[in-house]
Amino acid sequence: MDEKYITLAHGNGGRFMRELIEEVFARHLANPGLDVQVDAVTLSMDSPELMFTTDGFSVQPLEFPGGNIGSLAVHGTTNDLAVAGANPCFLSLTAFIEEGLEVAQLERISAAMAEAANEVGVKVVAGDTKVVPRGAGGGLYLATTGLGRRACRHPLGFEQIKPGDAILVSGTVGDHGTAVMLAREQFGLKGNLKSDAASVLPLAQALWELVGLRFMRDPTRGGLATVAHEIVHVTDLGVRLWEASIPVRAQVRSVCEMLGYDPYYLACEGRIIAVIDQAQVSTALAVLRRYPEGQDAVVIGQVVEGCHVVLETELGGERILEELEDDPLPRIC
Amino acid sequence: MDEKYITLAHGNGGRFMRELIEEVFARHLANPGLDVQVDAVTLSMDSPELMFTTDGFSVQPLEFPGGNIGSLAVHGTTNDLAVAGANPCFLSLTAFIEEGLEVAQLERISAAMAEAANEVGVKVVAGDTKVVPRGAGGGLYLATTGLGRRACRHPLGFEQIKPGDAILVSGTVGDHGTAVMLAREQFGLKGNLKSDAASVLPLAQALWELVGLRFMRDPTRGGLATVAHEIVHVTDLGVRLWEASIPVRAQVRSVCEMLGYDPYYLACEGRIIAVIDQAQVSTALAVLRRYPEGQDAVVIGQVVEGCHVVLETELGGERILEELEDDPLPRIC
Repeated sequence: MDEKYITLAHGNGGRFMRELIEEVFARHLANPGLDVQVDAVTLSMDSPELMFTTDGFSVQPLEFPGGNIGSLAVHGTTNDLAVAGANPCFLSLTAFIEEGLEVAQLERISAAMAEAANEVGVKVVAGDTKVVPRGAGGGLYLATTGLGRRACRHPLGFEQIKPGDAILVSGTVGDHGTAVMLAREQFGLKGNLKSDAASVLPLAQALWELVGLRFMRDPTRGGLATVAHEIVHVTDLGVRLWEASIPVRAQVRSVCEMLGYDPYYLACEGRIIAVIDQAQVSTALAVLRRYPEGQDAVVIGQVVEGCHVVLETELGGERILEELEDDPLPRIC
Repeated sequence: MDEKYITLAHGNGGRFMRELIEEVFARHLANPGLDVQVDAVTLSMDSPELMFTTDGFSVQPLEFPGGNIGSLAVHGTTNDLAVAGANPCFLSLTAFIEEGLEVAQLERISAAMAEAANEVGVKVVAGDTKVVPRGAGGGLYLATTGLGRRACRHPLGFEQIKPGDAILVSGTVGDHGTAVMLAREQFGLKGNLKSDAASVLPLAQALWELVGLRFMRDPTRGGLATVAHEIVHVTDLGVRLWEASIPVRAQVRSVCEMLGYDPYYLACEGRIIAVIDQAQVSTALAVLRRYPEGQDAVVIGQVVEGCHVVLETELGGERILEELEDDPLPRIC
């Protein structure tokens, strides 16, 4: 397409929109299942148990160290399927583009999305584009819906969680939230920290094999503390986390100390929190550590009788991690 | 929830967001398949042929005579499945809410969405909410993805279209675009025109029974003229439309004349354009006219050899309807 910036005409249903779709989105995301000329695409899925999930993305800035909104959207949605026990198969993509967005940036985002989709083995088969006027967007918002085949052979879910179960994390927490915050530069801080945004599918697939696996979640918005609160809220059990065990990068820790954030509430985009039968903890850790992205996997706490999320501090004290109220850091995913 | 207006904290993954989801979205959209606590929902679909589609909605104003962005989102997405030959089953919903949106308005929009979903028989089973800062939204943007079961027993699509086929429309054109434009009040015009936004599923289901049905589309963005152009673009055939036959309400016609719009390019949100074998035209019209929303169904043209969209004018002349370039009317869907 000839234009360097997106105009309202790119959303009108006519020639410009057709060119935008054909020459940017469809060119990058091309696959045999993608037909930009149909209202709805036909899918052949040989599974009786489908899994379905949706996510919106409004991260600011659109590009950050370790990813961009396009790769984030693919990873975020396919990770939701992975932690629910499903292999991702198909994605839909809706883009709300703000008038004035640079076409070259949209190309980079589409390319990152295509790369992430290829890596995960998911096909983008349906899409829609809306252009909103300058000042009524945020550059680009993406909504992705994923369809997968359930592949984990035993049930996963809050209802499987029992007192005494171990809580694991597959790697360091707070990297994504901190990296995006630094990328905004509004704090005058610089750093070489990268977002952890990545697919958790290989790790999840490895954990599916363990019959003692009860529950998994990727700790995105609200971070580790919010996943712990969801467990407490739904199960009527308590969670104890061991501060000394929770892996936090030194740079994340120092940025958080400087700005008064708690890393346990900051988003990860490539980690798994897993709840697992104590008897299988060492197997689970061994399995996770076989993968480069699982090297830092560790047990960080336990499910207990009770009704709080309690952090056992490094000094031997206890601190209640409250449910998140004020937003510590908007638009990180 | 206690708050009257949406704040950034309603998007942070914590308590406020949980309350927003439980007390607004889930309360209205409740159904046995909706579980707000899971990352991905399990669907049992007994069909080997699924159909999948997605749409974004950024209509301004959010509420207009005849509907709002919530009912529009359900109708728009399920209509795409209906014209593709599928019965809609499940929807996902992603909401990008601008900080400051009135909660009461979000309630009305959710209620309209629930009503539309019930009417069509579709269940909203997955959702996500993002809150964007004041000045970076447009009140509310919605993205919906629909999953349906293919039910039309013969193939539909551009590739079925043959020279000589008749082109039908199920009702008047341009109502939605004009109604939304009047609702903006920026033109100082008032009127009692309502959007045609509605489900086309009953009409589509009735037409599926006709083996001569080749192709259907709902003429949303870009209107009738844009559907005609898509036919020409994909099939390498021409389209002739008969101006005298195309149903346009007097009020739509007069608003368009006053403002210099062409009603053939304005969106409909509850109409079907169908291409059908000439031999079944009278049956198709009889079938459509059995329904209140099909009373104005009429043949409006024909597929011909050629490469243009030609309008035969009421005065006996001809005018080429060009492919839409500039956006005549942004944010009407």
